[in-house]
Amino acid sequence: MAPRPSGFSLLHPTDAATTARVKDVNAKRATPGSQTSLRESNRARIIEAVKHHGGLAQVELAGSTGLSPATVSNIVKELVAAGILQTTPSTRSGRRSQYVTLARNVGLVAGVHFGARHLRVAVADATGQVLADQRMPLGTDHRADAGLDRVALLLADMVESLDATLPELLAVGLGVPAPFDTSTGHVSSSSMLRGWGGVEIARVTSKRLGAPVFVDNDANLGALAELRQGAAKDVAQAAYVSVSHRIGSGLIINGEVYRGSIGTAGELGHVTIDEDGPICRCGNRGCLETFAGAQHLLELLRVSHGALTLRDVIRLALEGDAGCRRVVADAGRAVGIALANLCNLLNPSRVVVGGELARAGDILLDPIRETVGRSALPAASGALEIVPAELQGEAEILGAIALAIEHATVNVMANVPS
Amino acid sequence: MAPRPSGFSLLHPTDAATTARVKDVNAKRATPGSQTSLRESNRARIIEAVKHHGGLAQVELAGSTGLSPATVSNIVKELVAAGILQTTPSTRSGRRSQYVTLARNVGLVAGVHFGARHLRVAVADATGQVLADQRMPLGTDHRADAGLDRVALLLADMVESLDATLPELLAVGLGVPAPFDTSTGHVSSSSMLRGWGGVEIARVTSKRLGAPVFVDNDANLGALAELRQGAAKDVAQAAYVSVSHRIGSGLIINGEVYRGSIGTAGELGHVTIDEDGPICRCGNRGCLETFAGAQHLLELLRVSHGALTLRDVIRLALEGDAGCRRVVADAGRAVGIALANLCNLLNPSRVVVGGELARAGDILLDPIRETVGRSALPAASGALEIVPAELQGEAEILGAIALAIEHATVNVMANVPS
Repeated sequence: MAPRPSGFSLLHPTDAATTARVKDVNAKRATPGSQTSLRESNRARIIEAVKHHGGLAQVELAGSTGLSPATVSNIVKELVAAGILQTTPSTRSGRRSQYVTLARNVGLVAGVHFGARHLRVAVADATGQVLADQRMPLGTDHRADAGLDRVALLLADMVESLDATLPELLAVGLGVPAPFDTSTGHVSSSSMLRGWGGVEIARVTSKRLGAPVFVDNDANLGALAELRQGAAKDVAQAAYVSVSHRIGSGLIINGEVYRGSIGTAGELGHVTIDEDGPICRCGNRGCLETFAGAQHLLELLRVSHGALTLRDVIRLALEGDAGCRRVVADAGRAVGIALANLCNLLNPSRVVVGGELARAGDILLDPIRETVGRSALPAASGALEIVPAELQGEAEILGAIALAIEHATVNVMANVPS
Repeated sequence: MAPRPSGFSLLHPTDAATTARVKDVNAKRATPGSQTSLRESNRARIIEAVKHHGGLAQVELAGSTGLSPATVSNIVKELVAAGILQTTPSTRSGRRSQYVTLARNVGLVAGVHFGARHLRVAVADATGQVLADQRMPLGTDHRADAGLDRVALLLADMVESLDATLPELLAVGLGVPAPFDTSTGHVSSSSMLRGWGGVEIARVTSKRLGAPVFVDNDANLGALAELRQGAAKDVAQAAYVSVSHRIGSGLIINGEVYRGSIGTAGELGHVTIDEDGPICRCGNRGCLETFAGAQHLLELLRVSHGALTLRDVIRLALEGDAGCRRVVADAGRAVGIALANLCNLLNPSRVVVGGELARAGDILLDPIRETVGRSALPAASGALEIVPAELQGEAEILGAIALAIEHATVNVMANVPS
């Protein structure tokens, strides 16, 4: 199979004759511009749009496919009858509308998130509804194979407890806390996630699970979830920043998560704040992460406050402890410098701040806003909103599920008229 | 008229009944997905694609419109017969192909570039071929109205010398050396281009010329030209940086110039290099421009070398003068720090360096490459090429012409069968 620039794909190992991929079917049958192909091509457009957005109002479906409302309505009816889509009454801008998703019974999807310190696995139905959710701690220096083994065992257990079987998994979305190189399928630099260098994550995991696996950087998945259902919903140009043990960002450009030429865009944590600053784990000096990552904050507080966890620091800051408030605010100022540069370059209209440190609220956000206001061009910061994440600790896992739905292989049922 | 987020549009003041806009016509007539609309809609897609790219091989036209080669071939023939398109034999990847552009006789377009120190105006035919080209010096503190007056007089003269008249101008593309706010139609910060604050550039100029005018930041126009016909041709993720009296950049994302939420993306010159650095004209401290802009270089050399121009510095550096080589190299290191951060954020596969200082070649480029290699994540810099601009001093004016062609109002001739 030729490498695909978009990155994540891996063929489903089940019988290709019974589980045809919607896209491929149309690529073969359709002669663009001819009448005969129109029906099939319109159907595929609608299924792709629903998968891509996870779900959307029927009126939006017309807009996003370029089809007329009548055509959309007919095809949605047909696909609902065939058990591929389902609709739920909802309101959109005060008007009644149908919310369209994949049908619940189409199959299951899973999301996996390797965080800096924990592993989380969730199973959802094809509408994105989470049915099971588990997390466990993870050693910072665990090896990829051990981690992926745990995922496979956990997922098999979780699926079984839902009275289902692994072959019902349509797709798995998997997030890693490091830049993921889509041109190689590896974590792009072994120093960024020790024990993971050279591992073809999607291939290895897919082999164990018998389901296609799609991998992305976890900040990109956080951005995806905030874009689909959180603080960046309906925002065309935005950035999601996660401030925690590590600092990452996911960029939203023209309403889509932007991944760059080989998938490593958004590495805000490794933007240089001070050329002569501390050595970072990435090998550079003075990266944002060395000034605003949890380790630096805990180090700063060690003499005055003793050994704390990041959670302690946030709790104490919220309770009014001056030292903890100060380190959180200083972290905010460092993040603000990096974000000011991001705003000068990308001119987003909204920045969403998530990650564990964002639980400190305005203790973190106010210094970010102040610094961006001072350091960015007025043109870049004037119409900018800097807001807290809505999904908080859920963003990455929900993004992994969204990624799985987006790439899910959907059976083209024999009972859809052609 | 409601504000358009994409920015530049201004209705053509001529008779709308005779000069219908292709897009509008189709928006009214087409019912997406129906057979009757297909022919019109396919025709419009092809004209839009040709305008958008300025010109492209017929085989690429199939790819970029999603239409079959046979459909493209039929419609191109029809539009050539109608005098809207023209084809020129060319080779593409060793195979013969037709290169498709607007027909030469469809009308004229103009490009205007307000540089930091000069004004340049060019008139081209609808294929993009430059027919007349004039430049004149410009005081740094000229006022917008005086500058735009000169453009109007110059353009009228130039068009007349081509035995044509102003109503034959289909569109004008105009570049300004400052962030241009598409939400207001003004230069976004009056401190960035004194004498231009609050001027609705497109409206004022369009009124004087009787032709629609489309405005953009000049670095975006440089990026557009390098993307269409220069060092970024066929590159999906790239950045164009212009290093001269001012420093700007134009970002290419997914094969298109990216302008941000209000048009001010790409302000690399005002990325903070040193929080405590010199005060910049933008009001911030330690911006890249304060370390690598021409004024800083000339200032550094004043004591040792006396008063020089930027051209002198480049000539002396190329001749081996150690002091001049040093200031150019130091500017390269500063640009490298900003570019390393850009690469961490955007993961482009190519960076194109233009502007007057790029004439120093590797004296500038080698320190840029070295600094990016040291400061960017290996994942971001590994597959990155940093190359000189191909169009050099021509990029901005050619970009202005490309912008004009992209937005040109094309007559839908009565003799195209519907």
